[in-house]
Amino acid sequence: MADLHFYYAPGACSLASHILLHEAGVPFTTTRLSVRPAFPDDYAYINSKKRVPVLSFNGDFITENPAVMLAVSQLVPEKNLMGKTDLDKVRVLEWMNWLSASVHGQAYGMILRPSRFSDQESLHPGIRENGMKTLQDCFAQIESWLGKNKQQGVGFYALGDGQNFSAVDGYLYVFYRWAISLKLDMQAQYSRYSTLVRKLESRDAVQQALQAEGLQSVL
Amino acid sequence: MADLHFYYAPGACSLASHILLHEAGVPFTTTRLSVRPAFPDDYAYINSKKRVPVLSFNGDFITENPAVMLAVSQLVPEKNLMGKTDLDKVRVLEWMNWLSASVHGQAYGMILRPSRFSDQESLHPGIRENGMKTLQDCFAQIESWLGKNKQQGVGFYALGDGQNFSAVDGYLYVFYRWAISLKLDMQAQYSRYSTLVRKLESRDAVQQALQAEGLQSVL
Ligand SMILES: N[C@@H](CCC(=O)N[C@@H](CS)C(=O)NCC(=O)O)C(=O)O
Ligand SMILES: N[C@@H](CCC(=O)N[C@@H](CS)C(=O)NCC(=O)O)C(=O)O
Repeated sequence: MADLHFYYAPGACSLASHILLHEAGVPFTTTRLSVRPAFPDDYAYINSKKRVPVLSFNGDFITENPAVMLAVSQLVPEKNLMGKTDLDKVRVLEWMNWLSASVHGQAYGMILRPSRFSDQESLHPGIRENGMKTLQDCFAQIESWLGKNKQQGVGFYALGDGQNFSAVDGYLYVFYRWAISLKLDMQAQYSRYSTLVRKLESRDAVQQALQAEGLQSVL
Repeated sequence: MADLHFYYAPGACSLASHILLHEAGVPFTTTRLSVRPAFPDDYAYINSKKRVPVLSFNGDFITENPAVMLAVSQLVPEKNLMGKTDLDKVRVLEWMNWLSASVHGQAYGMILRPSRFSDQESLHPGIRENGMKTLQDCFAQIESWLGKNKQQGVGFYALGDGQNFSAVDGYLYVFYRWAISLKLDMQAQYSRYSTLVRKLESRDAVQQALQAEGLQSVL
């Protein structure tokens, strides 16, 4: 049995990994950090990049959501949390890398952490506006990709024919929540994405992770 | 035998996947695109996000470097290009996700594509300057992580004890090249990273990829 200790901040991107830990059904303990205004300096020993999530795995610190999620999925290979077939596994990385780099790092980065892109506070509103444009473009892509599954089957989930939950869905869930807190009218604009989120919020593991972080459903 | 067709732009981030195709030693054909000033609109059918690399894999289009690299590595599992042990595989994703999101998407994004962050050209010099600061922070991290391997063994490569090439190294190579073209004095500032690059440029697969893209070694 692996010794797992998970560091997260409530509602942050670490929620995706937190959901996956509950989906895996493995025992783990947690430390709650606050990353507002920033990751606490005295925790730099768990991640020199100063970000959550971090998973201590038998004493090794693992950072970056997709890496944490792979480590979790390796504990329960029969659940195929990172995809079942070779092509599914590739699609999982394709989704995750884009969600990390473009949706989180660029779009939400501009909106939530404009100081990463400019020291001058007077420029932050313009950077935020650019982030909102990028975010809406990203959501339009997500909506159209989720549509492909509808054509292939009757499922809601991101991967393949949409029948099976994967780590990608938990990751997509986080970015939907953040959009709601930005007051975007997600249900009106992105109906397939909203259907996925409704489905996710009916899963036990998602409710357990929300409860652990002190959060509510958004739909 | 998989039918592989690879779309790249010379010297772009797609070079990482191109190197891996040569490391794998599998047959593939290529299409060279130019992404200056931008990805060509008439190729949006291969990637609606309009970016290289794209790998056509038996007719499926695969995008995002880490996903393309996983697909390539699955063809030659005995080469362990995405890591051998479970923990190595996790470390590969940890490196790659950070390289994609923070080094490429944020640091180099600000330097090379400031218009992603602001429409106003007058602000681009400031954004570029911020990107340079972020980039140097990232390189300092890389240098210190490569140092860990030195402690563990005699290897140069990014993963584990540094003895074995992995996809991470090809990805690191691209970002070193870009720094050289920005006139950063990489050899003086980052000696372990430079040792890795010298080692990489002595590999046949790296030379084959460079030649195919019409590029020269940088060290
Ligand atoms: N690429 C990282 C990004 C992690 C990240 O940016 N986490 C945010 C929370 S959503 C954080 O810790 N921010 C703290 C800070 O910026 O100081 C991943 O995917 O895990
Ligand atoms: N997250 C993507 C990023 C791909 C990317 O940004 N590619 C650049 C070349 S380095 C590109 O195609 N840019 C074209 C454009 O911005 O129009 C990946 O890792 O593959």
